[in-house]
Amino acid sequence: MSSSQIPVAVLGATGSVGQRFISLLDNHPWFKVVALAASDRSAGQKYSKATRWVLDVPMPDYVKDMVIVPADTEAVQAKIVFSALHTEIANELEPAFAKAGAAVCSNASSYRRGEDVPLLLPEINADHIHLVKQQRANKGWSGCIVTNPNCTSTGMTIALKALDNAFGVKKVFAVSLQALSGAGYPGVSSLDIMDNIIPNVANGGEEEKVEWEPRKMLGKLNGNKIELADIKFSAHTNRVAVIDGHTVCASVALANPIEPEAAIQALRDYCAPESARELPSSPRPVISVRDEADRPQPRLDRLNGNGMTTVVGRVRRDPILDLKFVVLSHNTIRGAAGASIYNAELLVNEGLL
Amino acid sequence: MSSSQIPVAVLGATGSVGQRFISLLDNHPWFKVVALAASDRSAGQKYSKATRWVLDVPMPDYVKDMVIVPADTEAVQAKIVFSALHTEIANELEPAFAKAGAAVCSNASSYRRGEDVPLLLPEINADHIHLVKQQRANKGWSGCIVTNPNCTSTGMTIALKALDNAFGVKKVFAVSLQALSGAGYPGVSSLDIMDNIIPNVANGGEEEKVEWEPRKMLGKLNGNKIELADIKFSAHTNRVAVIDGHTVCASVALANPIEPEAAIQALRDYCAPESARELPSSPRPVISVRDEADRPQPRLDRLNGNGMTTVVGRVRRDPILDLKFVVLSHNTIRGAAGASIYNAELLVNEGLL
Amino acid sequence: MSSSQIPVAVLGATGSVGQRFISLLDNHPWFKVVALAASDRSAGQKYSKATRWVLDVPMPDYVKDMVIVPADTEAVQAKIVFSALHTEIANELEPAFAKAGAAVCSNASSYRRGEDVPLLLPEINADHIHLVKQQRANKGWSGCIVTNPNCTSTGMTIALKALDNAFGVKKVFAVSLQALSGAGYPGVSSLDIMDNIIPNVANGGEEEKVEWEPRKMLGKLNGNKIELADIKFSAHTNRVAVIDGHTVCASVALANPIEPEAAIQALRDYCAPESARELPSSPRPVISVRDEADRPQPRLDRLNGNGMTTVVGRVRRDPILDLKFVVLSHNTIRGAAGASIYNAELLVNEGLL
Amino acid sequence: MSSSQIPVAVLGATGSVGQRFISLLDNHPWFKVVALAASDRSAGQKYSKATRWVLDVPMPDYVKDMVIVPADTEAVQAKIVFSALHTEIANELEPAFAKAGAAVCSNASSYRRGEDVPLLLPEINADHIHLVKQQRANKGWSGCIVTNPNCTSTGMTIALKALDNAFGVKKVFAVSLQALSGAGYPGVSSLDIMDNIIPNVANGGEEEKVEWEPRKMLGKLNGNKIELADIKFSAHTNRVAVIDGHTVCASVALANPIEPEAAIQALRDYCAPESARELPSSPRPVISVRDEADRPQPRLDRLNGNGMTTVVGRVRRDPILDLKFVVLSHNTIRGAAGASIYNAELLVNEGLL
Repeated sequence: MSSSQIPVAVLGATGSVGQRFISLLDNHPWFKVVALAASDRSAGQKYSKATRWVLDVPMPDYVKDMVIVPADTEAVQAKIVFSALHTEIANELEPAFAKAGAAVCSNASSYRRGEDVPLLLPEINADHIHLVKQQRANKGWSGCIVTNPNCTSTGMTIALKALDNAFGVKKVFAVSLQALSGAGYPGVSSLDIMDNIIPNVANGGEEEKVEWEPRKMLGKLNGNKIELADIKFSAHTNRVAVIDGHTVCASVALANPIEPEAAIQALRDYCAPESARELPSSPRPVISVRDEADRPQPRLDRLNGNGMTTVVGRVRRDPILDLKFVVLSHNTIRGAAGASIYNAELLVNEGLL
Repeated sequence: MSSSQIPVAVLGATGSVGQRFISLLDNHPWFKVVALAASDRSAGQKYSKATRWVLDVPMPDYVKDMVIVPADTEAVQAKIVFSALHTEIANELEPAFAKAGAAVCSNASSYRRGEDVPLLLPEINADHIHLVKQQRANKGWSGCIVTNPNCTSTGMTIALKALDNAFGVKKVFAVSLQALSGAGYPGVSSLDIMDNIIPNVANGGEEEKVEWEPRKMLGKLNGNKIELADIKFSAHTNRVAVIDGHTVCASVALANPIEPEAAIQALRDYCAPESARELPSSPRPVISVRDEADRPQPRLDRLNGNGMTTVVGRVRRDPILDLKFVVLSHNTIRGAAGASIYNAELLVNEGLL
Repeated sequence: MSSSQIPVAVLGATGSVGQRFISLLDNHPWFKVVALAASDRSAGQKYSKATRWVLDVPMPDYVKDMVIVPADTEAVQAKIVFSALHTEIANELEPAFAKAGAAVCSNASSYRRGEDVPLLLPEINADHIHLVKQQRANKGWSGCIVTNPNCTSTGMTIALKALDNAFGVKKVFAVSLQALSGAGYPGVSSLDIMDNIIPNVANGGEEEKVEWEPRKMLGKLNGNKIELADIKFSAHTNRVAVIDGHTVCASVALANPIEPEAAIQALRDYCAPESARELPSSPRPVISVRDEADRPQPRLDRLNGNGMTTVVGRVRRDPILDLKFVVLSHNTIRGAAGASIYNAELLVNEGLL
Repeated sequence: MSSSQIPVAVLGATGSVGQRFISLLDNHPWFKVVALAASDRSAGQKYSKATRWVLDVPMPDYVKDMVIVPADTEAVQAKIVFSALHTEIANELEPAFAKAGAAVCSNASSYRRGEDVPLLLPEINADHIHLVKQQRANKGWSGCIVTNPNCTSTGMTIALKALDNAFGVKKVFAVSLQALSGAGYPGVSSLDIMDNIIPNVANGGEEEKVEWEPRKMLGKLNGNKIELADIKFSAHTNRVAVIDGHTVCASVALANPIEPEAAIQALRDYCAPESARELPSSPRPVISVRDEADRPQPRLDRLNGNGMTTVVGRVRRDPILDLKFVVLSHNTIRGAAGASIYNAELLVNEGLL
């Protein structure tokens, strides 16, 4: 481990999001994985033995012989802790780690709504990270909890930010076609999705997240709190037979209605805030706009910008609101593990570690 | 052929919709298939030799040895002619058959917008069939052309009718997840849809149809013409990896907003007009409303009511408009061949043959 | 219940094979379902509440309000008991029911290898049913246990019987492409099978069954025991992305090698033994041979003969052994629930109930 | 273009194999693409406009603005010509290019059986390349034609070579489960393969290739000709719902039967001939043997060694012959475009350009 590298850990390392963390952290220029934590059932085993690896990229060599430790603050000693824990477990463990001094970069939904918890997509609201100061003051923690949103909100909210900056967004209809990997492993039974779609995700809970989380991320940091954006959302969420990549069909009303061409230009011109622009995981570009009439498509476009770029297409007039478009985002990279890593990089860059 | 049976023909008999016509007409109580017409390439061959049968129900025995004839008014002698022709061919042939005295029940889009051409879903607008009198007067035909809508509009429009009757519908957002069979055979390449979705159907033409056709069907027959319903539609159409069954996620604004429970009741109580209620192909029930949080699903629900019933689920409040719901319809039965047959039955029942 | 109907029960009624039993027993001319048994977790609930129905045919009305009972001989009073139990549970429960007087028609593998237990495919070895007399003598049971084979062996063994009768079979290579429903529900994760195959089923256990079970079924009943057929089998088993229908590619060596045409004739001419020929579930025909170069295919051919017919195709010369062919069988109908029902009908017909 | 780079061309550049050539040749250390040829319909257009790109890796920048030329020896000036042409076109064009001085590295089947045409998998029969000297003498060409085998033969033959070297192979049963990309684009209709398998490929022609081509590749170069290996093959070929990666279940008889463990060792120890070992496209390793009971799997293992490695698993005893195993190979990389490029590298390395 180079002296300049920061020791990090992955909680929930054997699950599908945990695997994506491990894959994306292979050869990371700033971070070095020093601990893999999982349930007591796996603790004590070598990672390669305890894990059913489900990614189509191979398991990195560096983890194969690492011995899994329990997910507690004794066993896990790291400056940054990436959390791929289930909500109920994250509820308890994440504050414990923050209290013990770790920066918890969490993919769980437990604390996304916390008033002093940043809900981040660095390319659109990097400044929200300063909420951690308030969080530390409130809680007396030396560490902190920083979160990323639900994978379905992710790409859509990034596209909306570009439009909101330029024209003001007032209302959003969103219908998702979500990938199977979003449900974890084993997740969706093959008998439920072959020759089928499921017109619901997480028993409707997904729709509430998609209707609320973007309002926080598109909101303004005013002093020590976020003012939710004054935008109305309506969401239908669906599961489809796609491995990776969530697609959203969106219709939006704008404060200052414009032609599709102007919207395309605003999406193409969108730049991340300076502090989030040149980090190792920064999407390049933030948004890619396709001209073809039948793109984006998950299989063909999800790995754009190493899975961190938001891909938009079919920007056109909407007969009821103002604009319609389609947006695609890789749900386990930009929408999960890559998101938390990007957040951690921002923490480092802002000197908040 | 029983003396009481009506001789019918299928144009475009070898294609996938033609096959569905042949399957649904097997043992029909009123109709007897006397001619199968297809392109010159197939004419003269036995049906079983000329056809690559793609349905998962077997080819009925009655057609196996029938010899295919050319699609012209000489070779095809039938009172009712079911048209599964491509638009360009339908443009020319359908009027020729109508002039020659046949009742053309068409699945093609060629004449759906004709001012004197009924665009029918008998369970919601059976009275529109009387437009054929005006059509005959205008054109001097002894036959007629009667059409059914695009398969994506079908289920959604039936559900909307029940709501429109009860509460008045003002605006509709519709996002479709459409089955592969809607593109015909060979249609969509497997390489385009495996592990993928295509966020466009028919190069956008589908969306125009979905935004216009329901307005005609939900319109009022006023004297000799249809007044388009004053409803605004916005549609996104997508192709997904489902064999049969189009799903639509819809959000609607109502003139008289109500609770989801009242909407469910109105959908369940909906009855077809009397003239369309007891026909051989009448859906029983017209609309089935599911209570489960994850239904309708194409694979499990598309054959409801022999593929003629419209299945609705997830009726709930919409944060922007009034209601959200999901609607499923079998695209090659209720949305294509079954639709044309139901229209033909209505013609007979109304004495308009 | 008509006085002539026989009361039957389904053990394991909520699982996917249990559902298939319930579906196939709807309106059965001889049997009436009087009890549905499942795990203690479900007992006491209405069937429609306790069950996640996964078939694409709807749940029959007759079961919806039946209350599930525990799977014990007190709660379940029926002449015939259909067992869709897991092996470990079947190990204990099936003898208990046989002892209590029920004819257990089992789809479980627990007793298939029992020396006095018939392993039946009535269309090929109906005479083996007389082993139950020996079984009753050995065990002192008034009831009995009768089994059907593994779903992968089923179609292949039926085709082999026709060839064995005519030409003698000596060696068989078999490679299966097995459907997802064979693994039950939830069974195979969608992430494991989308854009994939799994070159193993049941951790290799499936191959042992396929290499042994056909030898018993093709064996001779000699007095009170079965002499295993002197045929060598080699099997590879694979899971593929098909919902229903197991396909097997087979190559066989014959005692009396013949031309493919003669083999096709023998397959087409094959008749079930008389006692198994006219039962309600008898396949009609037993074997269907397709002439097309690319059949059988699961989606198109699995419902042949209501899912009870074995479909064979591509009968051709094998460069190493004598013949190659492809065989398809519906794994949850002919290969599971339909098999046990057909066995029960044979028991009744032979006066062995 | 660096002075040391060799100018190469791709014939059939817009098709799916052509796309894979273009993708694999991006940043190739030895070769530089100077011409893209396709049908007259595409000639004159920019590559990015004329091509429907179907790979999930993006189109390389270097080809986007190249103008497609006709596939003739005037328009295409290159030392090496990669042929992704259809057989009928390759029949005529490949000799014309060879006559004009190009080294044609062909993926077409046209000349694979030519007595003086090398059929190469460099990691197993690199010495066969010296047949080109005889070919040049016979034909008077300054160029040459060098071929790679059918994609289904590829992985299997490589595994067989390791076994043949060590123990002698006498008989091979092979059943393939082939990916959709092997049929090109648009290739297999989604309606033919969803919830289905097709038990035939290329109308049986595939099986003849699989039963003959390995005999040539495993044969010995004796003076100026190849003596076919004395091995009998029997093949069944199937199409399954997998995007990339052909799986073969194989059973083999050996001259010197051994335990599975010895076979695994021989497969793991196998080394390419020295001349083929350190080329840019050399597989590293040649063969990877998996220990897990359910591997190889196409989605998880096809990109092993950048898609050039042959992956073997489930090596076990066969009850009829000696060994059974499963072998996986990426059909459009190792089995098509990567194969031709590896052949070209061998030509260069052997000074035969």
